Amino acid sequence: MMEYFNCISLKEAERLILNELAGLIVGSEQVSLVDSLGRIAAGDVVSKEDLPPFSRSTVDGFAVRGMDSFGAGEGVPALFDIVGEVVMGEQTFIQLKPGQAVTIPTGGMLPIGADAVVMIEHVERPDKDNLLVLKAVAPGENVVLKGEDISIGRQLLSQGRKIFPQDIGALAACGCVVVPVRQKPEVVIISTGDEVVDIECTPVSGQIRDINSYALAAMLEDNGCIVRRYGIVKDQYEELLAALSQAVLCCNMVIVSGGSSVGVRDHTVRVIKELGKSNVLFHGVAVKPGKPTIFGMVGKVPVFGLPGHPVAAMTVFGQIVKPAIQILLGQAIRDIYTIPARLSRSMASVPGRDDFIRVQLIKKSNEYWAEPVLGKSGLISTMSAADGIVHIPADKGGLYSEEMVQVELITKQ
Amino acid sequence: MMEYFNCISLKEAERLILNELAGLIVGSEQVSLVDSLGRIAAGDVVSKEDLPPFSRSTVDGFAVRGMDSFGAGEGVPALFDIVGEVVMGEQTFIQLKPGQAVTIPTGGMLPIGADAVVMIEHVERPDKDNLLVLKAVAPGENVVLKGEDISIGRQLLSQGRKIFPQDIGALAACGCVVVPVRQKPEVVIISTGDEVVDIECTPVSGQIRDINSYALAAMLEDNGCIVRRYGIVKDQYEELLAALSQAVLCCNMVIVSGGSSVGVRDHTVRVIKELGKSNVLFHGVAVKPGKPTIFGMVGKVPVFGLPGHPVAAMTVFGQIVKPAIQILLGQAIRDIYTIPARLSRSMASVPGRDDFIRVQLIKKSNEYWAEPVLGKSGLISTMSAADGIVHIPADKGGLYSEEMVQVELITKQ
Repeated sequence: MMEYFNCISLKEAERLILNELAGLIVGSEQVSLVDSLGRIAAGDVVSKEDLPPFSRSTVDGFAVRGMDSFGAGEGVPALFDIVGEVVMGEQTFIQLKPGQAVTIPTGGMLPIGADAVVMIEHVERPDKDNLLVLKAVAPGENVVLKGEDISIGRQLLSQGRKIFPQDIGALAACGCVVVPVRQKPEVVIISTGDEVVDIECTPVSGQIRDINSYALAAMLEDNGCIVRRYGIVKDQYEELLAALSQAVLCCNMVIVSGGSSVGVRDHTVRVIKELGKSNVLFHGVAVKPGKPTIFGMVGKVPVFGLPGHPVAAMTVFGQIVKPAIQILLGQAIRDIYTIPARLSRSMASVPGRDDFIRVQLIKKSNEYWAEPVLGKSGLISTMSAADGIVHIPADKGGLYSEEMVQVELITKQ
Repeated sequence: MMEYFNCISLKEAERLILNELAGLIVGSEQVSLVDSLGRIAAGDVVSKEDLPPFSRSTVDGFAVRGMDSFGAGEGVPALFDIVGEVVMGEQTFIQLKPGQAVTIPTGGMLPIGADAVVMIEHVERPDKDNLLVLKAVAPGENVVLKGEDISIGRQLLSQGRKIFPQDIGALAACGCVVVPVRQKPEVVIISTGDEVVDIECTPVSGQIRDINSYALAAMLEDNGCIVRRYGIVKDQYEELLAALSQAVLCCNMVIVSGGSSVGVRDHTVRVIKELGKSNVLFHGVAVKPGKPTIFGMVGKVPVFGLPGHPVAAMTVFGQIVKPAIQILLGQAIRDIYTIPARLSRSMASVPGRDDFIRVQLIKKSNEYWAEPVLGKSGLISTMSAADGIVHIPADKGGLYSEEMVQVELITKQ
């Protein structure tokens, strides 16, 4: 008895996932600043300090009142009295009066009364106490005022932001030595298939290595998860039931690789139904590759059934599982920046289905061409040869040769 | 006595760095496949096996000789004898004769004599032993032949390639459980400055926190390095000499943050000259921000002196130090994929200088606009607010409003 898929659209799949997972954001933890790179901020972080904490010079020169220099030029220098020197890293107590100047290094603290700095290149110093300014400076010129960079209360991190090196710079500047971040989601990968053997084994005839546990684990790590590879489970209902019922006890998500289709050895849907009290949200998505994709909930744990086919599994991971992880992480939705390119050949698709084509990017006379990677669609070599993926949306029947397309990179440097 | 920079162009700086570092690629090590993500391949890896190791079906159905089905259609079925069944994960010893068919599951091993599989949707089975095929299949249809995906000797990884999840998939498929990768370069960061205090401290007047050690460490980790923060060294020749002479003993690169200009407290150049026997390759690069940048060699260890200014330090890191790290890693040069955008305002530059402008990307009616982040150029808030960087090359005097520019992302998801 063949069952058939009751395919839903990719959009509908995304809606169902968001609906189930929006309330299941993982907990937060405090990590030290040096461990926060790439993590997701679990709350807004605002500065409790002004940066800089004092008005500073941005050049080597002489601190003055800018207005005292007005009108000064090469032929008509303005004369100042040098009344002291700012020492780097030390507080200054000098109070500048009109017509006075103070020697100041880059980064030095501006004396009270000063509001600008004349660069050393624009002065002459006839003697120790006198200064000729050859170029006027406006108030605020060559200085950064207290709090001008980051003022008290300014947001350093917004909840859901992925933390980049420049954020770490801003946090360091303001003395944020611990950062609230989302815990890393723990994801169990269960591989299924009577023919599947671990990668350490040499397959005998009829067997094939467990590619997906490793490729999916790498994608999960890339997306900020902790991965537990459960190993390989035979195509037997009871074995998968036992494995999945164990897995859901101790993780935030389960990925079952293989057994997601509608054959006699495809147990994933039945196991989720048994454990999750029928909570299979979808089985079958109108995407290519990746149609036999399952999403269900076992209690509060999302379970994805992915095709055993590595290319389909990796494609579905990128398009469906990765956004689900971002929901669990409370990650702010950002644009996926894509590379515009010209398609090198026409690609047929089927209206109502989202297709994902693997392409190489080739630069020709200042523009990129997206060259579909040839070979039967399932070959893993087509995935590793590709630079990115072109999406043929469901409302299109295909793409024309030389049409401009957007390439989502799978090879970020 | 003011020294002045003898600025060289960014291109010339890159040439000098390549010249010094090309022979200094770090050593290699073997890591297990699961630890190879993001590492740089230290050699070509070729497959010692065929993938798949046997000809397989890609669908559930019946293995046949394709030519026996020729002419079959809905009205004119072709009749086959069912002579057996392929069991998943097991070798089959059936030898198919003309007019015979064998039940086969997706992934099942093709029997000798068969060259195609009829999908289960395209057959009728009047009884246990007979099969009516309603749609012809061509030889090769619905099968992947032995070695068709990856054949023996095919390159899985090329030397210098960064390892992506899809590469891990291909390596797993072929049983490559250890991978030769470049060792992670060890990089020491020395922060200098009398005014600089650790981020754990509350700065008193005139002091400022050590932003660069943390921001640069994050960038180094992002680029596959092991980082040792040496801490903060006062602006004193002997202290820096002691720190640098220690550092070069045990690392592949040193970054000295601050003290890279030409003031009385800028000791980096003199210290490199002392330790490196005058081997300062350049001091001053015609870039903005980042002019006071130093590159020297102490023995076989490259030393970069970066501006103390965090934005300048991060910009120079991205444009000069990161490519240097890629040389040490023997990393294959890939295009830096950029996002095309329309500049929202004119930006002046100076011919002969490479400018790097921080921008936000804003989507308006299906195209991106690059909006320069306002504020004085040195503010760290301008860096953390930016999505990417626009390069104004040395042969341009600026960019016009609404001109198309290429944005290098500093916020990759």
